[in-house]
Amino acid sequence: MCELLGMSANVPTDIRFSFTGLAKRGGATGPHKDGWGIAFYAGRGARCFHDPQPSAKSELAHLVANYPIKSRVVIAHVRLANRGRVSLENTHPFSRELWGRTWVFAHNGQLKGVKKRPLGRYQPVGGTDSEHAFCWILDQLAARWSALPAPKALDRAVKALFEEINSHGVFNAMLSDSRSLYVFCSKRLCYLTRRAPFGPATLLDEDVEVDFAAETTPKDIVTVIATQPLTGNESWIKLERGDFIAFRDGLPA
Amino acid sequence: MCELLGMSANVPTDIRFSFTGLAKRGGATGPHKDGWGIAFYAGRGARCFHDPQPSAKSELAHLVANYPIKSRVVIAHVRLANRGRVSLENTHPFSRELWGRTWVFAHNGQLKGVKKRPLGRYQPVGGTDSEHAFCWILDQLAARWSALPAPKALDRAVKALFEEINSHGVFNAMLSDSRSLYVFCSKRLCYLTRRAPFGPATLLDEDVEVDFAAETTPKDIVTVIATQPLTGNESWIKLERGDFIAFRDGLPA
Repeated sequence: MCELLGMSANVPTDIRFSFTGLAKRGGATGPHKDGWGIAFYAGRGARCFHDPQPSAKSELAHLVANYPIKSRVVIAHVRLANRGRVSLENTHPFSRELWGRTWVFAHNGQLKGVKKRPLGRYQPVGGTDSEHAFCWILDQLAARWSALPAPKALDRAVKALFEEINSHGVFNAMLSDSRSLYVFCSKRLCYLTRRAPFGPATLLDEDVEVDFAAETTPKDIVTVIATQPLTGNESWIKLERGDFIAFRDGLPA
Repeated sequence: MCELLGMSANVPTDIRFSFTGLAKRGGATGPHKDGWGIAFYAGRGARCFHDPQPSAKSELAHLVANYPIKSRVVIAHVRLANRGRVSLENTHPFSRELWGRTWVFAHNGQLKGVKKRPLGRYQPVGGTDSEHAFCWILDQLAARWSALPAPKALDRAVKALFEEINSHGVFNAMLSDSRSLYVFCSKRLCYLTRRAPFGPATLLDEDVEVDFAAETTPKDIVTVIATQPLTGNESWIKLERGDFIAFRDGLPA
Protein backbone atom coordinates (compact mmCIF):
# COMPACT_ATOMS: atom_id res chain seq x y z
CA MET A 1 0.00 0.00 0.00
CA CYS A 2 0.91 3.60 -0.46
CA GLU A 3 -0.58 6.79 0.85
CA LEU A 4 -2.28 9.46 -1.21
CA LEU A 5 -2.86 13.14 -0.57
CA GLY A 6 -4.91 15.49 -2.71
CA MET A 7 -6.15 19.05 -2.45
CA SER A 8 -8.77 21.05 -4.30
CA ALA A 9 -9.30 24.71 -3.42
CA ASN A 10 -11.04 27.80 -4.77
CA VAL A 11 -7.97 29.96 -4.17
CA PRO A 12 -4.25 29.13 -4.40
CA THR A 13 -3.55 27.43 -1.09
CA ASP A 14 -0.46 26.28 0.76
CA ILE A 15 -0.39 22.46 1.14
CA ARG A 16 2.72 22.36 3.34
CA PHE A 17 0.90 21.58 6.57
CA SER A 18 -0.73 18.43 5.15
CA PHE A 19 2.35 17.41 3.19
CA THR A 20 4.43 17.53 6.37
CA GLY A 21 2.17 14.89 7.89
CA LEU A 22 2.21 12.71 4.77
CA ALA A 23 5.98 12.94 4.34
CA LYS A 24 6.49 11.60 7.88
CA ARG A 25 4.68 8.42 6.88
CA GLY A 26 7.33 7.82 4.22
CA GLY A 27 9.67 5.80 6.40
CA ALA A 28 9.15 7.42 9.83
CA THR A 29 5.62 7.04 11.25
CA GLY A 30 4.60 4.84 8.28
CA PRO A 31 6.38 2.16 6.19
CA HIS A 32 6.11 3.91 2.80
CA LYS A 33 9.82 4.14 2.19
CA ASP A 34 10.05 3.60 -1.58
CA GLY A 35 9.87 7.12 -2.85
CA TRP A 36 7.41 9.97 -2.97
CA GLY A 37 6.19 12.66 -5.31
CA ILE A 38 4.01 15.73 -5.41
CA ALA A 39 2.45 17.78 -8.22
CA PHE A 40 1.28 21.36 -7.78
CA TYR A 41 -0.81 22.84 -10.56
CA ALA A 42 -0.19 26.39 -11.74
CA GLY A 43 -2.62 27.24 -14.51
CA ARG A 44 -2.74 24.34 -16.97
CA GLY A 45 0.79 23.28 -16.13
CA ALA A 46 2.04 21.45 -13.08
CA ARG A 47 5.20 21.59 -11.04
CA CYS A 48 6.22 18.07 -10.06
CA PHE A 49 8.78 16.87 -7.54
CA HIS A 50 9.79 13.21 -7.40
CA ASP A 51 12.29 11.36 -5.33
CA PRO A 52 12.93 7.61 -5.09
CA GLN A 53 14.31 8.23 -1.56
CA PRO A 54 12.04 7.83 1.52
CA SER A 55 10.22 11.10 2.06
CA ALA A 56 10.97 11.12 5.79
CA LYS A 57 14.69 11.27 4.97
CA SER A 58 14.55 13.07 1.62
CA GLU A 59 16.36 16.37 1.40
CA LEU A 60 14.01 17.28 -1.43
CA ALA A 61 10.91 16.46 0.67
CA HIS A 62 12.27 18.63 3.46
CA LEU A 63 12.70 21.36 0.92
CA VAL A 64 9.19 21.01 -0.53
CA ALA A 65 7.77 20.97 2.99
CA ASN A 66 9.44 24.34 3.55
CA TYR A 67 8.80 25.90 0.16
CA PRO A 68 5.69 28.09 0.02
CA ILE A 69 4.11 27.02 -3.29
CA LYS A 70 0.43 27.89 -3.42
CA SER A 71 -1.79 25.91 -5.72
CA ARG A 72 -5.48 25.15 -6.31
CA VAL A 73 -4.94 21.47 -7.14
CA VAL A 74 -2.30 19.22 -5.59
CA ILE A 75 -1.70 15.46 -5.80
CA ALA A 76 0.93 13.71 -3.66
CA HIS A 77 1.94 10.12 -3.01
CA VAL A 78 4.31 8.17 -0.75
CA ARG A 79 5.14 4.70 -2.00
CA LEU A 80 5.64 1.22 -0.62
CA ALA A 81 6.61 -0.74 -3.71
CA ASN A 82 4.66 -3.90 -4.49
CA ARG A 83 4.99 -4.02 -8.30
CA GLY A 84 7.85 -2.33 -10.14
CA ARG A 85 11.29 -1.62 -8.73
CA VAL A 86 12.20 1.49 -6.76
CA SER A 87 13.27 4.08 -9.32
CA LEU A 88 12.39 7.54 -10.53
CA GLU A 89 10.33 6.15 -13.45
CA ASN A 90 8.14 4.26 -10.97
CA THR A 91 7.57 7.19 -8.64
CA HIS A 92 4.06 8.68 -8.58
CA PRO A 93 2.44 11.00 -9.49
CA PHE A 94 2.69 10.35 -13.23
CA SER A 95 1.96 13.07 -15.74
CA ARG A 96 1.02 13.34 -19.40
CA GLU A 97 -0.37 16.03 -21.69
CA LEU A 98 -3.85 15.66 -23.20
CA TRP A 99 -5.82 18.43 -24.97
CA GLY A 100 -3.12 20.96 -24.09
CA ARG A 101 -3.45 20.29 -20.36
CA THR A 102 -1.14 18.50 -17.99
CA TRP A 103 -2.83 15.46 -16.44
CA VAL A 104 -1.50 14.09 -13.18
CA PHE A 105 -2.29 10.70 -11.65
CA ALA A 106 -1.46 8.81 -8.46
CA HIS A 107 -2.76 5.47 -7.27
CA ASN A 108 -2.53 2.97 -4.48
CA GLY A 109 -3.50 -0.68 -4.64
CA GLN A 110 -2.75 -3.57 -6.98
CA LEU A 111 -4.37 -4.09 -10.37
CA LYS A 112 -4.17 -7.71 -11.45
CA GLY A 113 -4.05 -8.19 -15.22
CA VAL A 114 -4.30 -4.48 -16.02
CA LYS A 115 -1.17 -4.70 -18.19
CA LYS A 116 -3.09 -6.89 -20.63
CA ARG A 117 -5.14 -3.87 -21.63
CA PRO A 118 -3.70 -2.69 -24.94
CA LEU A 119 -2.27 0.81 -25.11
CA GLY A 120 -2.13 3.33 -27.93
CA ARG A 121 -0.44 6.72 -27.94
CA TYR A 122 0.36 6.77 -24.22
CA GLN A 123 3.09 4.33 -23.18
CA PRO A 124 4.48 3.76 -19.67
CA VAL A 125 8.01 5.00 -18.99
CA GLY A 126 8.34 2.79 -15.90
CA GLY A 127 7.06 -0.67 -14.95
CA THR A 128 4.12 -0.09 -12.60
CA ASP A 129 0.53 -1.26 -12.97
CA SER A 130 -0.49 2.25 -11.98
CA GLU A 131 1.19 3.99 -14.90
CA HIS A 132 -0.24 1.40 -17.29
CA ALA A 133 -3.75 2.13 -15.97
CA PHE A 134 -3.14 5.89 -16.31
CA CYS A 135 -2.01 5.49 -19.94
CA TRP A 136 -5.06 3.35 -20.69
CA ILE A 137 -7.44 5.92 -19.18
CA LEU A 138 -5.90 8.76 -21.22
CA ASP A 139 -6.02 6.63 -24.38
CA GLN A 140 -9.77 6.13 -23.88
CA LEU A 141 -10.37 9.84 -23.30
CA ALA A 142 -8.22 10.85 -26.28
CA ALA A 143 -10.12 8.40 -28.50
CA ARG A 144 -13.45 9.84 -27.42
CA TRP A 145 -12.82 13.58 -27.64
CA SER A 146 -10.32 15.57 -29.70
CA ALA A 147 -10.56 18.58 -27.36
CA LEU A 148 -11.54 19.17 -23.73
CA PRO A 149 -15.25 18.35 -23.30
CA ALA A 150 -17.72 20.00 -20.93
CA PRO A 151 -16.96 19.26 -17.26
CA LYS A 152 -20.00 17.07 -16.57
CA ALA A 153 -19.42 14.88 -19.64
CA LEU A 154 -15.79 14.42 -18.63
CA ASP A 155 -16.81 13.61 -15.04
CA ARG A 156 -19.09 10.80 -16.25
CA ALA A 157 -16.45 9.37 -18.57
CA VAL A 158 -13.73 9.39 -15.90
CA LYS A 159 -16.09 7.73 -13.40
CA ALA A 160 -16.86 4.91 -15.86
CA LEU A 161 -13.17 4.39 -16.66
CA PHE A 162 -12.23 4.35 -12.96
CA GLU A 163 -14.93 1.74 -12.29
CA GLU A 164 -13.59 -0.39 -15.12
CA ILE A 165 -10.01 -0.23 -13.79
CA ASN A 166 -11.26 -0.92 -10.26
CA SER A 167 -12.45 -4.35 -11.49
CA HIS A 168 -8.74 -5.36 -11.58
CA GLY A 169 -8.31 -5.13 -7.82
CA VAL A 170 -7.70 -2.17 -5.55
CA PHE A 171 -7.89 1.28 -7.08
CA ASN A 172 -7.66 4.20 -4.69
CA ALA A 173 -6.80 6.94 -7.15
CA MET A 174 -6.47 10.64 -7.81
CA LEU A 175 -6.44 12.25 -11.26
CA SER A 176 -6.50 15.87 -12.37
CA ASP A 177 -6.65 17.81 -15.63
CA SER A 178 -5.83 21.04 -13.71
CA ARG A 179 -9.55 21.97 -13.45
CA SER A 180 -11.06 19.00 -11.59
CA LEU A 181 -9.63 16.62 -9.02
CA TYR A 182 -11.10 13.16 -9.59
CA VAL A 183 -11.01 10.82 -6.62
CA PHE A 184 -11.95 7.14 -6.47
CA CYS A 185 -12.15 5.08 -3.29
CA SER A 186 -11.68 1.37 -3.75
CA LYS A 187 -10.88 0.64 -0.14
CA ARG A 188 -9.62 3.56 1.89
CA LEU A 189 -9.82 7.33 1.43
CA CYS A 190 -11.23 10.18 3.47
CA TYR A 191 -11.64 13.91 3.08
CA LEU A 192 -12.17 17.11 4.95
CA THR A 193 -13.43 20.49 3.73
CA ARG A 194 -12.10 23.52 5.55
CA ARG A 195 -14.07 26.77 5.23
CA ALA A 196 -15.06 29.73 7.40
CA PRO A 197 -15.07 29.85 10.36
CA PHE A 198 -11.55 28.39 10.28
CA GLY A 199 -9.94 27.02 13.40
CA PRO A 200 -6.71 25.36 14.51
CA ALA A 201 -5.65 21.89 13.31
CA THR A 202 -3.08 19.51 14.77
CA LEU A 203 -1.13 16.92 12.77
CA LEU A 204 -1.31 13.30 13.91
CA ASP A 205 2.17 12.41 12.62
CA GLU A 206 4.18 15.29 13.93
CA ASP A 207 3.86 17.81 16.68
CA VAL A 208 2.67 20.65 14.47
CA GLU A 209 -0.37 22.87 14.87
CA VAL A 210 -1.60 25.50 12.44
CA ASP A 211 -4.30 28.10 12.95
CA PHE A 212 -6.05 28.29 9.58
CA ALA A 213 -7.98 31.39 10.70
CA ALA A 214 -4.70 33.31 10.45
CA GLU A 215 -3.83 31.87 7.02
CA THR A 216 -7.10 32.25 5.14
CA THR A 217 -9.86 34.65 4.09
CA PRO A 218 -13.56 33.99 4.83
CA LYS A 219 -14.20 33.03 1.18
CA ASP A 220 -11.59 30.24 1.03
CA ILE A 221 -12.81 26.68 0.54
CA VAL A 222 -10.19 23.95 0.73
CA THR A 223 -10.76 20.21 0.57
CA VAL A 224 -7.99 17.80 1.54
CA ILE A 225 -8.30 14.12 0.58
CA ALA A 226 -6.03 11.49 2.13
CA THR A 227 -5.67 7.75 2.64
CA GLN A 228 -5.98 8.25 6.39
CA PRO A 229 -6.86 11.33 8.45
CA LEU A 230 -3.88 13.65 8.82
CA THR A 231 -5.22 15.67 11.74
CA GLY A 232 -6.61 14.56 15.08
CA ASN A 233 -9.02 17.35 15.99
CA GLU A 234 -11.09 17.59 12.80
CA SER A 235 -13.95 15.45 11.44
CA TRP A 236 -12.76 13.56 8.38
CA ILE A 237 -15.43 12.03 6.14
CA LYS A 238 -14.70 8.43 5.22
CA LEU A 239 -15.40 7.48 1.61
CA GLU A 240 -17.17 4.18 0.93
CA ARG A 241 -15.97 1.49 -1.47
CA GLY A 242 -16.81 2.53 -5.02
CA ASP A 243 -17.26 6.23 -4.20
CA PHE A 244 -16.24 8.64 -6.94
CA ILE A 245 -16.05 12.42 -6.45
CA ALA A 246 -15.12 15.17 -8.90
CA PHE A 247 -13.88 18.13 -6.87
CA ARG A 248 -13.79 21.60 -8.43
CA ASP A 249 -12.86 24.78 -6.58
CA GLY A 250 -12.71 22.93 -3.28
CA LEU A 251 -16.13 21.27 -3.40
CA PRO A 252 -17.76 18.19 -4.93
CA ALA A 253 -19.02 19.30 -8.38
CA MET B 1 17.18 35.57 -26.05
CA CYS B 2 17.57 32.91 -23.43
CA GLU B 3 20.48 30.79 -22.34
CA LEU B 4 20.76 27.06 -22.70
CA LEU B 5 22.83 24.51 -20.84
CA GLY B 6 23.12 20.83 -21.67
CA MET B 7 25.22 17.93 -20.48
CA SER B 8 25.95 14.48 -21.87
CA ALA B 9 28.16 12.09 -19.91
CA ASN B 10 29.16 8.43 -19.85
CA VAL B 11 28.64 8.22 -16.07
CA PRO B 12 26.13 9.96 -13.79
CA THR B 13 27.68 13.37 -13.27
CA ASP B 14 27.00 16.34 -11.04
CA ILE B 15 25.95 19.41 -13.07
CA ARG B 16 25.86 21.81 -10.11
CA PHE B 17 29.06 23.64 -11.00
CA SER B 18 27.80 24.59 -14.48
CA PHE B 19 24.25 25.28 -13.30
CA THR B 20 25.57 27.72 -10.69
CA GLY B 21 27.07 29.79 -13.50
CA LEU B 22 23.94 29.61 -15.64
CA ALA B 23 21.61 30.47 -12.77
CA LYS B 24 23.57 33.68 -12.10
CA ARG B 25 22.71 34.86 -15.62
CA GLY B 26 19.03 34.65 -14.72
CA GLY B 27 18.70 38.22 -13.47
CA ALA B 28 22.15 38.81 -11.91
CA THR B 29 25.06 38.72 -14.40
CA GLY B 30 22.61 38.28 -17.31
CA PRO B 31 19.14 39.67 -18.12
CA HIS B 32 17.30 36.33 -18.31
CA LYS B 33 14.87 37.08 -15.54
CA ASP B 34 11.68 35.38 -16.78
CA GLY B 35 12.03 31.97 -15.25
CA TRP B 36 14.26 28.94 -15.52
CA GLY B 37 14.07 25.21 -15.59
CA ILE B 38 16.25 22.12 -15.53
CA ALA B 39 15.65 18.45 -16.35
CA PHE B 40 17.88 15.64 -15.04
CA TYR B 41 17.40 12.22 -16.59
CA ALA B 42 17.39 9.12 -14.40
CA GLY B 43 16.91 6.07 -16.59
CA ARG B 44 14.11 6.75 -19.06
CA GLY B 45 12.43 9.22 -16.74
CA ALA B 46 13.45 12.77 -15.94
CA ARG B 47 13.31 14.92 -12.86
CA CYS B 48 12.30 18.45 -13.82
CA PHE B 49 12.41 21.68 -11.83
CA HIS B 50 10.70 24.80 -13.14
CA ASP B 51 10.27 28.23 -11.70
CA PRO B 52 8.81 31.36 -13.29
CA GLN B 53 10.95 33.40 -10.85
CA PRO B 54 14.39 34.73 -11.91
CA SER B 55 16.93 31.99 -11.25
CA ALA B 56 19.38 34.37 -9.59
CA LYS B 57 16.75 35.05 -6.89
CA SER B 58 14.90 31.73 -6.95
CA GLU B 59 14.86 29.76 -3.72
CA LEU B 60 14.30 26.66 -5.83
CA ALA B 61 17.32 27.43 -8.04
CA HIS B 62 19.45 27.88 -4.95
CA LEU B 63 18.22 24.52 -3.76
CA VAL B 64 18.91 22.78 -7.07
CA ALA B 65 22.37 24.35 -7.16
CA ASN B 66 23.02 22.72 -3.78
CA TYR B 67 21.32 19.39 -4.37
CA PRO B 68 23.69 16.61 -5.51
CA ILE B 69 21.65 14.99 -8.30
CA LYS B 70 23.90 13.00 -10.64
CA SER B 71 22.69 12.40 -14.17
CA ARG B 72 24.01 11.41 -17.59
CA VAL B 73 21.82 13.83 -19.54
CA VAL B 74 20.77 17.28 -18.37
CA ILE B 75 19.00 20.15 -20.14
CA ALA B 76 18.58 23.58 -18.51
CA HIS B 77 17.29 26.96 -19.63
CA VAL B 78 17.04 30.50 -18.28
CA ARG B 79 14.45 32.63 -20.02
CA LEU B 80 14.04 36.20 -21.23
CA ALA B 81 10.47 36.19 -22.55
CA ASN B 82 9.86 37.40 -26.08
CA ARG B 83 6.75 35.39 -27.00
CA GLY B 84 4.34 34.05 -24.38
CA ARG B 85 3.79 35.54 -20.92
CA VAL B 86 5.87 34.69 -17.85
CA SER B 87 4.20 31.64 -16.32
CA LEU B 88 4.95 28.08 -15.35
CA GLU B 89 3.39 26.72 -18.57
CA ASN B 90 5.82 28.81 -20.61
CA THR B 91 8.93 27.80 -18.68
CA HIS B 92 11.41 25.53 -20.47
CA PRO B 93 12.40 22.74 -20.64
CA PHE B 94 9.20 21.16 -21.91
CA SER B 95 8.62 17.45 -21.63
CA ARG B 96 6.43 14.80 -23.25
CA GLU B 97 6.37 11.01 -23.43
CA LEU B 98 7.00 9.22 -26.74
CA TRP B 99 7.69 5.48 -27.15
CA GLY B 100 7.74 5.03 -23.37
CA ARG B 101 10.52 7.57 -22.91
CA THR B 102 10.44 11.05 -21.51
CA TRP B 103 11.52 13.62 -24.10
CA VAL B 104 12.81 16.97 -22.93
CA PHE B 105 13.24 20.10 -25.05
CA ALA B 106 14.56 23.63 -24.57
CA HIS B 107 15.05 26.36 -27.14
CA ASN B 108 16.22 29.89 -27.60
CA GLY B 109 15.38 32.17 -30.49
CA GLN B 110 12.20 33.23 -32.28
CA LEU B 111 10.33 31.09 -34.79
CA LYS B 112 8.15 33.23 -37.07
CA GLY B 113 5.04 31.45 -38.34
CA VAL B 114 5.85 28.15 -36.60
CA LYS B 115 2.40 28.12 -34.98
CA LYS B 116 0.84 27.70 -38.43
CA ARG B 117 2.24 24.17 -38.53
CA PRO B 118 -0.68 21.87 -37.72
CA LEU B 119 -0.39 19.66 -34.65
CA GLY B 120 -1.75 16.20 -33.91
CA ARG B 121 -1.53 14.28 -30.67
CA TYR B 122 0.88 16.66 -28.94
CA GLN B 123 -0.67 20.01 -27.97
CA PRO B 124 1.05 22.91 -26.23
CA VAL B 125 0.06 23.59 -22.62
CA GLY B 126 1.49 27.13 -22.74
CA GLY B 127 1.71 29.81 -25.41
CA THR B 128 5.32 29.74 -26.65
CA ASP B 129 6.61 29.18 -30.20
CA SER B 130 9.11 26.79 -28.64
CA GLU B 131 6.57 24.37 -27.21
CA HIS B 132 4.64 24.43 -30.49
CA ALA B 133 7.84 23.46 -32.36
CA PHE B 134 8.52 20.69 -29.82
CA CYS B 135 5.00 19.27 -30.24
CA TRP B 136 5.36 19.39 -34.04
CA ILE B 137 8.71 17.56 -33.93
CA LEU B 138 7.28 14.79 -31.72
CA ASP B 139 4.20 14.50 -33.95
CA GLN B 140 6.49 13.89 -36.95
CA LEU B 141 8.53 11.26 -35.10
CA ALA B 142 5.40 9.51 -33.75
CA ALA B 143 3.91 9.41 -37.25
CA ARG B 144 7.07 7.83 -38.65
CA TRP B 145 7.83 5.14 -36.07
CA SER B 146 5.58 3.33 -33.61
CA ALA B 147 8.53 2.36 -31.37
CA LEU B 148 12.02 3.70 -30.72
CA PRO B 149 14.11 3.28 -33.91
CA ALA B 150 17.85 2.60 -34.15
CA PRO B 151 19.96 5.53 -32.93
CA LYS B 152 21.43 6.51 -36.31
CA ALA B 153 18.03 6.56 -38.03
CA LEU B 154 16.63 8.73 -35.24
CA ASP B 155 19.66 11.05 -35.44
CA ARG B 156 19.02 11.66 -39.15
CA ALA B 157 15.30 12.28 -38.64
CA VAL B 158 15.86 14.73 -35.77
CA LYS B 159 18.50 16.60 -37.81
CA ALA B 160 16.09 17.01 -40.75
CA LEU B 161 13.25 18.19 -38.46
CA PHE B 162 15.55 20.67 -36.69
CA GLU B 163 16.65 22.08 -40.05
CA GLU B 164 13.04 22.49 -41.10
CA ILE B 165 12.13 24.34 -37.88
CA ASN B 166 15.27 26.47 -38.20
CA SER B 167 13.81 27.90 -41.45
CA HIS B 168 11.37 29.85 -39.23
CA GLY B 169 14.06 32.00 -37.65
CA VAL B 170 16.48 31.34 -34.84
CA PHE B 171 16.60 27.82 -33.42
CA ASN B 172 19.27 27.11 -30.87
CA ALA B 173 17.87 23.96 -29.35
CA MET B 174 18.45 20.94 -27.14
CA LEU B 175 16.36 17.78 -27.21
CA SER B 176 16.78 14.43 -25.50
CA ASP B 177 15.05 11.06 -25.43
CA SER B 178 17.17 10.04 -22.38
CA ARG B 179 19.71 8.24 -24.59
CA SER B 180 20.95 11.00 -26.91
CA LEU B 181 21.31 14.74 -26.46
CA TYR B 182 20.50 16.47 -29.74
CA VAL B 183 21.91 19.95 -30.17
CA PHE B 184 21.29 22.45 -32.96
CA CYS B 185 23.11 25.75 -33.37
CA SER B 186 21.24 28.40 -35.29
CA LYS B 187 23.29 31.30 -34.07
CA ARG B 188 25.12 30.75 -30.82
CA LEU B 189 26.18 27.61 -28.92
CA CYS B 190 29.49 26.21 -27.75
CA TYR B 191 30.69 23.07 -26.02
CA LEU B 192 33.51 21.59 -24.04
CA THR B 193 34.43 17.95 -23.41
CA ARG B 194 36.11 17.21 -20.10
CA ARG B 195 38.06 13.95 -19.82
CA ALA B 196 41.27 12.68 -18.23
CA PRO B 197 43.56 14.30 -17.30
CA PHE B 198 41.05 16.50 -15.48
CA GLY B 199 42.06 19.86 -14.10
CA PRO B 200 40.56 22.83 -12.29
CA ALA B 201 37.90 25.08 -13.83
CA THR B 202 36.77 28.56 -12.81
CA LEU B 203 33.30 29.99 -13.42
CA LEU B 204 33.04 33.29 -15.30
CA ASP B 205 29.84 34.37 -13.53
CA GLU B 206 30.69 33.65 -9.95
CA ASP B 207 33.82 33.27 -7.91
CA VAL B 208 33.76 29.48 -7.85
CA GLU B 209 36.48 27.04 -8.77
CA VAL B 210 36.22 23.26 -8.92
CA ASP B 211 38.98 20.70 -9.33
CA PHE B 212 37.46 18.02 -11.54
CA ALA B 213 40.44 15.73 -10.90
CA ALA B 214 39.09 15.26 -7.36
CA GLU B 215 35.52 14.62 -8.53
CA THR B 216 36.02 12.15 -11.38
CA THR B 217 37.57 8.84 -12.42
CA PRO B 218 39.95 8.52 -15.40
CA LYS B 219 37.21 6.91 -17.52
CA ASP B 220 34.70 9.77 -17.18
CA ILE B 221 33.77 11.72 -20.28
CA VAL B 222 31.54 14.74 -19.80
CA THR B 223 30.46 17.24 -22.45
CA VAL B 224 28.84 20.53 -21.44
CA ILE B 225 27.02 22.59 -24.08
CA ALA B 226 26.05 26.21 -23.42
CA THR B 227 24.96 29.40 -25.16
CA GLN B 228 28.16 31.09 -23.99
CA PRO B 229 31.27 29.70 -22.29
CA LEU B 230 30.69 29.19 -18.56
CA THR B 231 34.34 28.92 -17.55
CA GLY B 232 37.27 31.22 -18.25
CA ASN B 233 40.24 28.87 -18.24
CA GLU B 234 39.05 26.14 -20.63
CA SER B 235 38.85 25.99 -24.44
CA TRP B 236 35.21 26.00 -25.51
CA ILE B 237 34.48 24.93 -29.09
CA LYS B 238 32.16 27.32 -30.90
CA LEU B 239 29.46 25.70 -33.03
CA GLU B 240 28.79 27.14 -36.48
CA ARG B 241 25.39 28.15 -37.81
CA GLY B 242 23.51 25.06 -38.89
CA ASP B 243 25.64 22.64 -36.86
CA PHE B 244 23.80 19.62 -35.49
CA ILE B 245 25.37 17.16 -33.05
CA ALA B 246 23.92 14.02 -31.47
CA PHE B 247 25.81 13.41 -28.21
CA ARG B 248 25.75 9.98 -26.58
CA ASP B 249 27.73 9.00 -23.50
CA GLY B 250 29.52 12.34 -23.50
CA LEU B 251 30.75 12.34 -27.09
CA PRO B 252 29.43 13.17 -30.57
CA ALA B 253 27.88 9.94 -31.90
